Amino acid sequence: MSDVTIDDLPVRDELRGKSPYGAPQLDVPVRLNTNENPYPLPEALVERITERVREAARHLNRYPDRDAVELRTRLAEYLTRTAGHPVGVERVWAANGSNEVIQQLLQTFGGPGRTAIGFEPSYSMHALIARATNTGWIPGPRDEDFTIDLAAAERAIAEHRPDVVFITTPNNPTGTAVPRETVLALYEAAQAARPSMVVVDEAYVEFSHGDSLLPLLEGRPHLVVSRTMSKAFGAAGLRLGYLAADPAVVDAVQLVRLPYHLSAVTQATALAALEHTDTLLGYVEQLKAERDRLVAELRGAGYQVTESDANFVQFGRFEDAHAVWRRILDRGVLVRDNGVPGWLRVTAGTPAENDAFLDAVRELKKERYA
Amino acid sequence: MSDVTIDDLPVRDELRGKSPYGAPQLDVPVRLNTNENPYPLPEALVERITERVREAARHLNRYPDRDAVELRTRLAEYLTRTAGHPVGVERVWAANGSNEVIQQLLQTFGGPGRTAIGFEPSYSMHALIARATNTGWIPGPRDEDFTIDLAAAERAIAEHRPDVVFITTPNNPTGTAVPRETVLALYEAAQAARPSMVVVDEAYVEFSHGDSLLPLLEGRPHLVVSRTMSKAFGAAGLRLGYLAADPAVVDAVQLVRLPYHLSAVTQATALAALEHTDTLLGYVEQLKAERDRLVAELRGAGYQVTESDANFVQFGRFEDAHAVWRRILDRGVLVRDNGVPGWLRVTAGTPAENDAFLDAVRELKKERYA
Repeated sequence: MSDVTIDDLPVRDELRGKSPYGAPQLDVPVRLNTNENPYPLPEALVERITERVREAARHLNRYPDRDAVELRTRLAEYLTRTAGHPVGVERVWAANGSNEVIQQLLQTFGGPGRTAIGFEPSYSMHALIARATNTGWIPGPRDEDFTIDLAAAERAIAEHRPDVVFITTPNNPTGTAVPRETVLALYEAAQAARPSMVVVDEAYVEFSHGDSLLPLLEGRPHLVVSRTMSKAFGAAGLRLGYLAADPAVVDAVQLVRLPYHLSAVTQATALAALEHTDTLLGYVEQLKAERDRLVAELRGAGYQVTESDANFVQFGRFEDAHAVWRRILDRGVLVRDNGVPGWLRVTAGTPAENDAFLDAVRELKKERYA
Repeated sequence: MSDVTIDDLPVRDELRGKSPYGAPQLDVPVRLNTNENPYPLPEALVERITERVREAARHLNRYPDRDAVELRTRLAEYLTRTAGHPVGVERVWAANGSNEVIQQLLQTFGGPGRTAIGFEPSYSMHALIARATNTGWIPGPRDEDFTIDLAAAERAIAEHRPDVVFITTPNNPTGTAVPRETVLALYEAAQAARPSMVVVDEAYVEFSHGDSLLPLLEGRPHLVVSRTMSKAFGAAGLRLGYLAADPAVVDAVQLVRLPYHLSAVTQATALAALEHTDTLLGYVEQLKAERDRLVAELRGAGYQVTESDANFVQFGRFEDAHAVWRRILDRGVLVRDNGVPGWLRVTAGTPAENDAFLDAVRELKKERYA
């Protein structure tokens, strides 16, 4: 056996001493830590997936459609229908999770000598993918209530002139929606400063009280909206992310995409899920109601809660959030400590899962622990 | 509609004017251009895939096993069995195609300010992934007969002191195997120069007359062997690549891998294919015999042929290889023009496909065209 460690290898300096990203994968009765959809796919969809995968498997010796045209066409139809704005296949691109979409965008528009900004706390993979693509990362400001202070954000953009601006709405891990006017103003600020690409990460938009920002793509070639099937489609295991943007952006990311990056089984499974959109969006409605119940009951129990437009809720405040995380885990419920001082995040689960969580945090209040 | 082009976007300078990688995907009766395995998966395996995917689909709302432990365990067993050398799960890593494996390696060990060398002509994705990861690319030398001239290769390594050395064996597109002693000498040269990581790309090794270089991993922490299920496993549509290396290398690539990069359906499908290894390796034996027949009959027809240890054959020589490519295509057979002056590449297909190809190239000789 080898006694070699990472430090003995010629890894890049900026990777030394770092740890891989990832929430603890613990075997706990109630897992509300990674914003997964708690509803398994309906059995009819499971059968449709197996049918489509069976057909794909019969041609598995051949490379998949490199441009995933059928899948992108169906995704474009989904966006057109739900955003109330026509989106054509030439504006849609797909990859293995929105993480790979973002990686391709940063390989194309970021990279060495370039920078990206995000308004923190936000989705921490943006900064990590920036590091992995050698894009300089600028932690942009966010207000105490986790909204974006437009004036402060505009100042940061003017000062740093980033090549890529990330706007996550609804924001993870806070749940905060970014108003359309703020996104428009930040886009203008970014164009005035450089011009930069503006990536609106809408991973959780189906759970929002408001509308998608997709209609803003019209006439804004430097705007990108990224999406995922992990949450609203209940398919975290599928790893299917996508983007909508000007067709030139779709052309540009193809310069860095790995050829045949999307497997035939991934394409087949995603196509099956898109046939069952209505059923899956029905679950989204249930989860929105459960999310609102979590907000109300957490407040009723005496916790502070950040306004949420996502399938999760940020709650606090705690002197020692990690100790509270551990106490909730002791009661069989896994929530997420994202490292935001004083706050934890809980995913909206099934009604029974949410009850288990609410019981746990009410107990903590009774014990005057939280 | 937008009239914006890539040139209007703030893409990285080194991407300007470039085209996406990829062979033409043409609808032709006989496709022998992308080194696919011509044998569809056996129906029993198709059924096993659907069973495993059905089970995975029932949990698709959850993220997949981030570390793909079961899959890596089965891949390690396959390597142990076929290479005659024990390989443990801690030495194996998997990703979406060997392209993603290579991208992760270059993100970890290459990148800005670093360089990689390959001995050309070779698998062109090595250079393209170097570009996409901002790793400087050094085109290393190869002899006229497409073997690696050890002295010239050692000189290139000593002169350029690359951080990563690619050795493709059997080489694509030439089919040339690299002798074990050459790989050992290049490893030593690379250690003396920097030390560098040495990546042995064994995508086609199952078709080789010789053995895998996996046993060389012992005591060589800077050596990596990369593999794929696209060819020998007849699963180009699956996109499953993997590597074997010191466990520290497996730890290191996890610093740049996108979390949950391997979907649950990909893991399920690959696991099913690994259950049918013996059947699939039976097809490999048929393809080796067909490869040898192609070599013999091409030579019999008056063509020059490069020795091949892969599932494809390089043949020539032509004054205008692209014109010959087009004439073969006119006869319904798609081969590959890899841009190696004077040469074309044909994949070993089924006996009938190979007959169609051989008929076409014999006709060209009769017409004194080639």
